[in-house]
Amino acid sequence: MSTKRDSVVICEVGPRDGLQMAQGRMATDVKLRWLRQLADAGLREIEVGSFVSPRAVPQMADTGDVVRGALAIDGLTVCALACNLKGVIAAHEAGAHVVAIPISVSDTHSRANVNKGTDDQVEAVRAIVDWVRAQSRPMRIDVAAATAFGCSMEGQVSRKRVAQVAAALAAAGADRVALADTVGYADPALVRDTVREVQDAIGARLTKLHLHDTMGLGLANALAGLEQGIREFDACLAGLGGCPFAPGASGNIVTEDLVFMLESMGHATGVDLPRLLAARALLHEALPGETMRSGVAAAGIPRTFRASAALA
Amino acid sequence: MSTKRDSVVICEVGPRDGLQMAQGRMATDVKLRWLRQLADAGLREIEVGSFVSPRAVPQMADTGDVVRGALAIDGLTVCALACNLKGVIAAHEAGAHVVAIPISVSDTHSRANVNKGTDDQVEAVRAIVDWVRAQSRPMRIDVAAATAFGCSMEGQVSRKRVAQVAAALAAAGADRVALADTVGYADPALVRDTVREVQDAIGARLTKLHLHDTMGLGLANALAGLEQGIREFDACLAGLGGCPFAPGASGNIVTEDLVFMLESMGHATGVDLPRLLAARALLHEALPGETMRSGVAAAGIPRTFRASAALA
Repeated sequence: MSTKRDSVVICEVGPRDGLQMAQGRMATDVKLRWLRQLADAGLREIEVGSFVSPRAVPQMADTGDVVRGALAIDGLTVCALACNLKGVIAAHEAGAHVVAIPISVSDTHSRANVNKGTDDQVEAVRAIVDWVRAQSRPMRIDVAAATAFGCSMEGQVSRKRVAQVAAALAAAGADRVALADTVGYADPALVRDTVREVQDAIGARLTKLHLHDTMGLGLANALAGLEQGIREFDACLAGLGGCPFAPGASGNIVTEDLVFMLESMGHATGVDLPRLLAARALLHEALPGETMRSGVAAAGIPRTFRASAALA
Repeated sequence: MSTKRDSVVICEVGPRDGLQMAQGRMATDVKLRWLRQLADAGLREIEVGSFVSPRAVPQMADTGDVVRGALAIDGLTVCALACNLKGVIAAHEAGAHVVAIPISVSDTHSRANVNKGTDDQVEAVRAIVDWVRAQSRPMRIDVAAATAFGCSMEGQVSRKRVAQVAAALAAAGADRVALADTVGYADPALVRDTVREVQDAIGARLTKLHLHDTMGLGLANALAGLEQGIREFDACLAGLGGCPFAPGASGNIVTEDLVFMLESMGHATGVDLPRLLAARALLHEALPGETMRSGVAAAGIPRTFRASAALA
């Protein structure tokens, strides 16, 4: 078990994964005010939107403007999601520092979502890498191996398969690979075993976990990853996001509670918890119909809490 | 890290810790029907009520009848909570198999709750042990070291202090000692370090963790305990219970989600998850105003789920 108390990067995905599932729309200027609050709270990496069809996901139609606005926030790493070369080109044109590309490990899930199998998608990543590398401005390419801990269509996904796809993505030139529990089926033993197998295949190229709290196991799964050396996690303010495969289910792991856990354990996240909690107000105002979760927000920061800096 | 896939005992505390915080009352016959459903789902140990002042906790006024009724359930270990000798005598007279006694590690918390300091309470346990051992019918004596991971009054509670109190309780003759995160301040590193220190002091006499999900870290904390060899956990169907120190906060860790986590990891709990979920209906019917939590209940049991028996 890795108990080294080093720093952990939290990538806030609320403006993308959270808002894309929301019933209401958030206006561009409100998004930018919210991004600024999140950055002011200390989040250094934010997935600000996605370059996908505005017909399919109207909440993301303004992602170009959001990326351009976010670039004005000092020190912020601006990420955007894209599913194909067209989206990657748009992300690059807008000036995103990082493009995040989801690829389903489950072939069935991949075909259902993008009408292409996993192997074809890996080939598409290779073409994307070639295109990005040919540009004068560099852009980091992160690939998220979706359905890495199970699939609502195929059921269990073998760890061997996950490691093979991760190795293929690394070979295709992806800078970083993340494992995503897209449908929320993971448990801590599965996270531990899968992370180990993928680390054996691609080493430190596996950087991040994207976890959902569907079954209430989100932070336990994050702990299992942390113990295997993972130092980067996606999370969502107020746990927005839901699960498209389970109506009414919880969404992403909750940024506030993840920060509380990590800082309490002595891991520096760079995030100021009271300021992070304050960033909930704008979200609630803009999208009053959304369920906002967080144990820390409901109970208040306990008087025993010491941020990692105070523990050092 | 202990990854041995052995069995884990879940002690359902909903009929005590859950109902005592509930706004509504559950009638004695409904409690007994509910206990039978919980036992039918495979729970072998249930804290069915508490022998405390019916003026202070009117929901528990029928605990004698509930204990006597629960004794008719085949194979069930019937636990009851008591705070002093009078309550222990009542638990013994009713026929409880186990009496659970909370003792605050925080002296301030102890004085505020029972007008006695921790040392006096340890002495009270000694007198209780003497009384119980003098009876012809044996009764197991479990002591829960409350506020073991922090106190809303004193703040941080030192691990050394927790280990000293645990050692004193073991010396006083308690059969088993549990550590309770009474106010929900624990984090996985604190659980790991505290469990280790108490194990160094009293070895296998430390059997159980009683965790709350106040900050959303309940199952992550349970995982940390599991990794240190703890094989017994209190939990509450639907996560009932709340936190008397934080209105609106979450309650105990959720039995359904704990079972899902443990069984997915290959630990046998003896609990049938679909039957456990079915036991929520009666609870909802009897107490329609209570917030019922559970990721597994909201999202449904995923198709990849295999109970530990199927994994063996």
